[in-house]
Amino acid sequence: MNQIQGGVCAAQGFQAAGLHVGVKTHNVNKKDLTLIVSDVPCTAAGVFTTNVVKAAPIQVTRRHLAAGPVRAVVANSGNANACAPEGEENAVRMCRAAAAALGVQPQEVLVSSTGVIGQTLKVGVIEAGLPTLSGMLEHSWAGSDAAAAAIMTTDTVPKEAAVEFTVGGKTVCMGGIAKGSGMIRPNMGTMLCFITTDCAISQELLQSALREVCAVSFNRISVDGDTSTNDTCLVLANGLAGNAPITQRGGDYDAFAAALKEICVTLARKIASDGEGARHLITCTVSGAADEKTAETVAKSVVSSTLTKAAIFGADANWGRVLCAMGYSGAAFDPEAVDVSFASDAGRVAVCSRGRGLPFDEELAKKVLSEHDVEIRISMGSGAGQCVCWGCDITYEYIRINGDYRT
Amino acid sequence: MNQIQGGVCAAQGFQAAGLHVGVKTHNVNKKDLTLIVSDVPCTAAGVFTTNVVKAAPIQVTRRHLAAGPVRAVVANSGNANACAPEGEENAVRMCRAAAAALGVQPQEVLVSSTGVIGQTLKVGVIEAGLPTLSGMLEHSWAGSDAAAAAIMTTDTVPKEAAVEFTVGGKTVCMGGIAKGSGMIRPNMGTMLCFITTDCAISQELLQSALREVCAVSFNRISVDGDTSTNDTCLVLANGLAGNAPITQRGGDYDAFAAALKEICVTLARKIASDGEGARHLITCTVSGAADEKTAETVAKSVVSSTLTKAAIFGADANWGRVLCAMGYSGAAFDPEAVDVSFASDAGRVAVCSRGRGLPFDEELAKKVLSEHDVEIRISMGSGAGQCVCWGCDITYEYIRINGDYRT
Repeated sequence: MNQIQGGVCAAQGFQAAGLHVGVKTHNVNKKDLTLIVSDVPCTAAGVFTTNVVKAAPIQVTRRHLAAGPVRAVVANSGNANACAPEGEENAVRMCRAAAAALGVQPQEVLVSSTGVIGQTLKVGVIEAGLPTLSGMLEHSWAGSDAAAAAIMTTDTVPKEAAVEFTVGGKTVCMGGIAKGSGMIRPNMGTMLCFITTDCAISQELLQSALREVCAVSFNRISVDGDTSTNDTCLVLANGLAGNAPITQRGGDYDAFAAALKEICVTLARKIASDGEGARHLITCTVSGAADEKTAETVAKSVVSSTLTKAAIFGADANWGRVLCAMGYSGAAFDPEAVDVSFASDAGRVAVCSRGRGLPFDEELAKKVLSEHDVEIRISMGSGAGQCVCWGCDITYEYIRINGDYRT
Repeated sequence: MNQIQGGVCAAQGFQAAGLHVGVKTHNVNKKDLTLIVSDVPCTAAGVFTTNVVKAAPIQVTRRHLAAGPVRAVVANSGNANACAPEGEENAVRMCRAAAAALGVQPQEVLVSSTGVIGQTLKVGVIEAGLPTLSGMLEHSWAGSDAAAAAIMTTDTVPKEAAVEFTVGGKTVCMGGIAKGSGMIRPNMGTMLCFITTDCAISQELLQSALREVCAVSFNRISVDGDTSTNDTCLVLANGLAGNAPITQRGGDYDAFAAALKEICVTLARKIASDGEGARHLITCTVSGAADEKTAETVAKSVVSSTLTKAAIFGADANWGRVLCAMGYSGAAFDPEAVDVSFASDAGRVAVCSRGRGLPFDEELAKKVLSEHDVEIRISMGSGAGQCVCWGCDITYEYIRINGDYRT
């Protein structure tokens, strides 16, 4: 498998574009409408937020996924269309307008929204903008860049990834774009992620692969512990790579799932790294747990702990907070068997052995934790279970952003 | 029931004192050792953290509670004695030193610690300071004030409460002190709380009352979602009020439990209000839930939501975050039946009706949310369940405090 350029346009037969149409009113330079289109009908799959309060576009997208092949995804930023008047009607109108501009059926269009909750979506500006946007569609990486930019809210960088790999002797491409930033926690963690591939694969296996991979990528990141009402991850597969369709588990499916995992983990790490106000990407690696579930419970609790996040912000090797977060995670384990160390490109410092503090070089610890990418390594001393989760620190900037998000 | 002065010394026959002995090294003006003593043996009860990682003093206190009547509580701040070398040995040494200074048995002394995790407790300075501290014991409110000050860590104010009420024709007093600030979430929420009463009550009923009351007071507050390793709530009852001992449920027990609830809710609110860096006390009142458990699950999720806390910090009426936090709480409910309003001494503003945004006066909302005490009122429209939980906003100051807590 090779990393390549091109994001959501890396795979054959996919075009994308992004444009400012006026959902975001405060800055006309900020794109707010994304369109991703396949030249031919696609098999598609999706996973969605576990929040009881689900945004209207999720309901509509689910219906359209169930209706059969898909041609396009339309998505806006600046308004979540959740708990909003005329939510479902406006989500349907977005699909209709995109379908009309593209000459396809409305149920062949999937729809997503991200932004403020509870305000009526200005669907008129979206309808007015879609003909222009569809005229801007490009097969090149520039199309993906624009699409990635147009789903950003408080994200500071667009997030793209793409790989090529081989299925049945054919070169297959897969790429994706994502946005994250706030309302991110390990339970379908990204607000929006769109993935395209030219691989031929059955809908059933596409859905399985997406579900399995989301569980070990997006569901293992945390920014603030708030699970959004809009979280959506969609994958469209148009089969243009010409491989014999993947219709059963085996080597081809595994290659496909590995590529999907590569894309999703890359995008998940980018989301955690670009968490609102974040200065550090925190990777928590747990090994020696009784089983993988225990390792995951513990690792998620550590990357979600506000106190641990604040300590990393301060480059403070306060490992007691790591043990504390493990302890209230709900996992059963023996604290007296736990080892903890901090690591980064600047080195590694062991701080806790068998549940007790070790003397350590405070200066080195400060250096290790001052790097952008820091790792919390935990060994639980009781089995072979392991897991990696990602998060970010909490900063003054997070408070500033979220103290005044709507206005 | 009347509110009175005196805190932990309000009840007959209780003395208290607080002193700087040197556990906190950076400021000799900060007291760090507390002693609370009853003139006669007490019935005692305790509830403790649910964290798997439990501080050493909790293990020792549990043993001493099981051993029979109690005479005193000794507690230090500045070091949690959790995950620390010689933790249990040092907790035992604290009890022994207090017992020697008071002329009682070591198992008649309960012990608590709060502060940094993972560092060896300087038990020598505690042993050296206890004879002085025991000489400073006072029956007056000044003793309670000093004791409340000496358990503070990042708390900005000491927390005390006391009431008098009637049991079997006798006037009974009850009072308490508490400390909170960080590592506070609804699951035995305070790090330390000590309550004294001159009521005569059986150990069994004292323990029941404490457990029931903690569930609806300390377990309903949240500062940062981190459940400490040291959370402890102890109650000592010395019987000096001369009431016929409460040995069965009924009117007397109910009066006792009501007084205990008054003390615990008052202290819990003070802890939430003085959460690290907090500028607002947030009260979340849920009514119309299917049952009390659902109401509690929803209210806890709202006061624990980092995004909701940040919105209150910014006096931003971002009610979408309230609905979002309700939605991921784990409770099942119909979002389309939910009403939300914000209230404070400055007025009340309805922002959401039946799951949809209402037009509202932004200026009034800003005024309402700029008060120190703000209320989030939620009506779920599906039953008679209700619950009140308390939390605080998250501020720049929280980040500053916790970015550099150890040093």
